[in-house]
Amino acid sequence: MSPTHTIAHEIRNDFGVPFTHRLLFDRDVLNPENPLLDAVFEREDDDAPQSGVIAVVDQGLADARPEIKDAITTRFAASNLPELREVLLVPGGETCKNDPAIIDRILAAIEKHRIDRRSYVAIFGGGAVLDAAGFAASTAHRGVRVVRFASTVLAQLDAAIGVKTGVNRFEKKNFVGTFDVPTAVVCDEAMLESLDVRRWREGFSEAVKIACLQDAAFFESISDAADRIRERDLDAARPIIRRCAKMHLEHIASGGDPFERLEARPLDFGHWSAHRLESMSGFNLSHGEAVAIGICLDSAYSNLVGRLSKAEFDRIIDVMLRLGLPVSHPLLGDDRLVAGLEEFREHLGGRLTITLLDKIGLGAEVHKMELDRVRESIAVLHSIVD
Amino acid sequence: MSPTHTIAHEIRNDFGVPFTHRLLFDRDVLNPENPLLDAVFEREDDDAPQSGVIAVVDQGLADARPEIKDAITTRFAASNLPELREVLLVPGGETCKNDPAIIDRILAAIEKHRIDRRSYVAIFGGGAVLDAAGFAASTAHRGVRVVRFASTVLAQLDAAIGVKTGVNRFEKKNFVGTFDVPTAVVCDEAMLESLDVRRWREGFSEAVKIACLQDAAFFESISDAADRIRERDLDAARPIIRRCAKMHLEHIASGGDPFERLEARPLDFGHWSAHRLESMSGFNLSHGEAVAIGICLDSAYSNLVGRLSKAEFDRIIDVMLRLGLPVSHPLLGDDRLVAGLEEFREHLGGRLTITLLDKIGLGAEVHKMELDRVRESIAVLHSIVD
Repeated sequence: MSPTHTIAHEIRNDFGVPFTHRLLFDRDVLNPENPLLDAVFEREDDDAPQSGVIAVVDQGLADARPEIKDAITTRFAASNLPELREVLLVPGGETCKNDPAIIDRILAAIEKHRIDRRSYVAIFGGGAVLDAAGFAASTAHRGVRVVRFASTVLAQLDAAIGVKTGVNRFEKKNFVGTFDVPTAVVCDEAMLESLDVRRWREGFSEAVKIACLQDAAFFESISDAADRIRERDLDAARPIIRRCAKMHLEHIASGGDPFERLEARPLDFGHWSAHRLESMSGFNLSHGEAVAIGICLDSAYSNLVGRLSKAEFDRIIDVMLRLGLPVSHPLLGDDRLVAGLEEFREHLGGRLTITLLDKIGLGAEVHKMELDRVRESIAVLHSIVD
Repeated sequence: MSPTHTIAHEIRNDFGVPFTHRLLFDRDVLNPENPLLDAVFEREDDDAPQSGVIAVVDQGLADARPEIKDAITTRFAASNLPELREVLLVPGGETCKNDPAIIDRILAAIEKHRIDRRSYVAIFGGGAVLDAAGFAASTAHRGVRVVRFASTVLAQLDAAIGVKTGVNRFEKKNFVGTFDVPTAVVCDEAMLESLDVRRWREGFSEAVKIACLQDAAFFESISDAADRIRERDLDAARPIIRRCAKMHLEHIASGGDPFERLEARPLDFGHWSAHRLESMSGFNLSHGEAVAIGICLDSAYSNLVGRLSKAEFDRIIDVMLRLGLPVSHPLLGDDRLVAGLEEFREHLGGRLTITLLDKIGLGAEVHKMELDRVRESIAVLHSIVD
């Protein structure tokens, strides 16, 4: 290449993409007397043709609340709401994230019913169904509108708030997905009443997580409410759920990196081992239960490496136990667990980043975990339940 | 629902997601003496492990430049560049957008070679391959890094600049896709030398389009250069390609709506019929050729409804003909053409929005086309070539 051929020319542009994220809490949102959906689906342009909507409903939710299909049909019969064109039932939990045929079924319904970028996919379910149906909706026409109706505690305080979608491929959780901001997230507390007790309790581990990382006062509130929450007291749970959801949304909106283009993901405390435990257990451990154990593991490690005090470590264990959540599991002793560190690094990209605790309310990032200390931490947890 | 149950609570957050878009023009970028790729793949963090890259190469490009696979291997052997882990060949043109198996093949390679969010997919090809491989890369781990090496005129001045990916499903063009900002777009003018004459010429219809919409002086420049461009004079084409690419990038970066969350897409002038013509012709008409005809059609219509002067309409036809581009086609008379209006509306969502011309350099949006006038416009174009 001769010097005269050096004609490099660069044009560089920095720009921002604006998003609005709405999070709404209420009760009985499908009751025709409840005006919440009028606001969520308000038309921005009177000249526009009526938009359409398809509903994707978690089979688990439909089993627990058999009336929901009729309730959806009745509510969307209102003339100011989008025209309801189909209600699809999809299996809940990891099944819907593991089966590509379900994604294709949702895409086909979007195509058949001419759901366009001004029309909606309304998803009713737990985190897995929100993830999978959200993935289909975020890629159809490069993104049709999505309203998430979060039906579990875990979804209402965490999973539904995020700006992510995802499905599993090559036996890797969330290997394929998108970043996508829903039009609205609707948290209907009546839907929580049909959860079984494990599904109710598991959600609160994500509240403990964010409290440990960011807010000691919030940890106190959870601790004060823990016994009543375990017994499914909605009045005790409501402020915890809302505050947790708000903290998640603020982290996304003001954290400077909502689409995770930078490296740090400090809200992933306790998650490297949780993802592994979930899949190693064949999903007998739910996500929230696995996160509870993961938090306890990284808290034990934080204590052993001289960051977190023993008293505060004990308080974390105490809150988990009073919430009715597991703090240990036989699979922690399985050698496949530590392989999760590398898989976690790969999913994040770049260096391994793990969040530990300096104290309750203050996380600290590290880029290495000492495996001997991890094993000691596991022994500490095993001794608690022995 | 009793009034005491009205506990609606809303949390709303507006936020922006920052992106950087880099567009680089040069020649022989795979020459080891050319430092351009050193800058494109520069590590931002010396502590990070070496990242990896897989290359996806358009079979059409590999056929025209059989040495490219070796050139890629040689260039990425440099120790400061990501480690090259595989070179995949994929069919070019609409084939790669129509076949889901190709997407799966790219995803499998990303998984196998542990391409993470700090690693790269380097795509070498025309717009279709950039779209399809870009879709796979934008969903793996919710988006690994992509560097687009645009190998056609159309890609260098238009297709590669956009922040979109897409594949065809349900016989609809780009039914599934994402918005995604590449790490960099590299335009190597040496790659243009292996294009056949049709592939060379077709690209310039997109330059005529953006000039018609936004910049009368740019239209003059294209007109002045048209005869030389038709004869493949790179010195005449270079400033047109770069200026067009720059205008596209500025439209994306400063248009306020890079991910098309609002309604208008004024750069889609001439495209409603072009998309139809392409598919009705079984893709015998290339995208750029179809766009040339589509521009002529909407220009004729703009003239017939009293917006564009006859003299300026004639100038648009003249430039197209001197660029060696088609201005009409027998399929314009096919009744399936106007069905493209509805399909176009649906893809954009909401109201139909069509851009017409008030004069060269000034577009105008309308929300309705009169079908009788469309047919008259077609007759005008047919008379030109009769």
